[in-house]
Amino acid sequence: MIKFNVLLFNDFEALDVFGPIEVIGKLDQIYEIGYFSENGGLIQCKQNVKVETMPLSEIKEAGVILIPGGFGTRKEVDNQNFITQIKNLSLQAQFVLTVCTGSALLARTGLIKNLKATTNKIAFDWVVEQDREVEWIKKARWINDGKFYSSSGVSAGIDMALGFVGDRFGIEAAQKISKGIEYIWNKDKENDPFAG
Amino acid sequence: MIKFNVLLFNDFEALDVFGPIEVIGKLDQIYEIGYFSENGGLIQCKQNVKVETMPLSEIKEAGVILIPGGFGTRKEVDNQNFITQIKNLSLQAQFVLTVCTGSALLARTGLIKNLKATTNKIAFDWVVEQDREVEWIKKARWINDGKFYSSSGVSAGIDMALGFVGDRFGIEAAQKISKGIEYIWNKDKENDPFAG
Repeated sequence: MIKFNVLLFNDFEALDVFGPIEVIGKLDQIYEIGYFSENGGLIQCKQNVKVETMPLSEIKEAGVILIPGGFGTRKEVDNQNFITQIKNLSLQAQFVLTVCTGSALLARTGLIKNLKATTNKIAFDWVVEQDREVEWIKKARWINDGKFYSSSGVSAGIDMALGFVGDRFGIEAAQKISKGIEYIWNKDKENDPFAG
Repeated sequence: MIKFNVLLFNDFEALDVFGPIEVIGKLDQIYEIGYFSENGGLIQCKQNVKVETMPLSEIKEAGVILIPGGFGTRKEVDNQNFITQIKNLSLQAQFVLTVCTGSALLARTGLIKNLKATTNKIAFDWVVEQDREVEWIKKARWINDGKFYSSSGVSAGIDMALGFVGDRFGIEAAQKISKGIEYIWNKDKENDPFAG
């Protein structure tokens, strides 16, 4: 089993997490999903949900990392301890996936300098400022550069997660999941109807 | 503020809940979202998430009710206490929304006899058996009949939630939300690419 570690913080955006994990959860013979936060305990999201988490220090294997966005990122980009832990985990991880403004947290680690990445439209300029040396792409449903995947806003995380599954296990595996959850998959990562 | 009460149970399907609440959460001047379960406490979903809930007895106002689906419905259809509480809340509620096999729980209350409803494709026959007097529609992204809204599988709940917002507050309000979360809204409830 490969660990699939979701990094949470207060005021994360619900669908940034639960869209991708709906997809990854269908591969429960391959990925074991866990929820972590800086200090563990209940983490509250923008939509009033309180989710139980374990402390980051209890991650046993970096495996795959998922970093959601949300208003909480505005505060967390300046949380040096959290950013350092994201950096250490990302260095060890096989893959790092960010959704929406989650890419701002990853950018702050300095690990995606000179790599291509994307983020959501509304907060685009703010995210760019977190590291101007990232090659930020505005028109993209999602981007894959090396071991890093980044998606544009919220719902695009579902398309990215299906794209990630397609890259690992073939497009038929991804299509089977999208059919099972009756999701109309936008499978072309360059087809971004919200850009411009 | 109108209460928007989400009814959870173990083994609910994550996206059935967090898709619609991503939409409804954008109307936080109108709807106050709360999470409830039969006895309160931490409820675990299929995708390993543990969500904090309050007991159903603490619902102060029925308002709008959201009932997700998931494998847990197979057990809960025979939980007479839970079904009775769903029935009482649904009688008082302004609107009742079900996603995926959540419609099986609502069907068991007997409240949607002779009304149109839909559910997901994979479990369709099982859901129909929960009450054959419901007018089950297989080809529908979502259905609205009176105060009841029901969607087909998982992701269709997002389209339904946007449709619900459109019915209440106008299509522009729904389109603004779908644009904000970069979601490609299938706004025609009769356009169901997963039927047949």
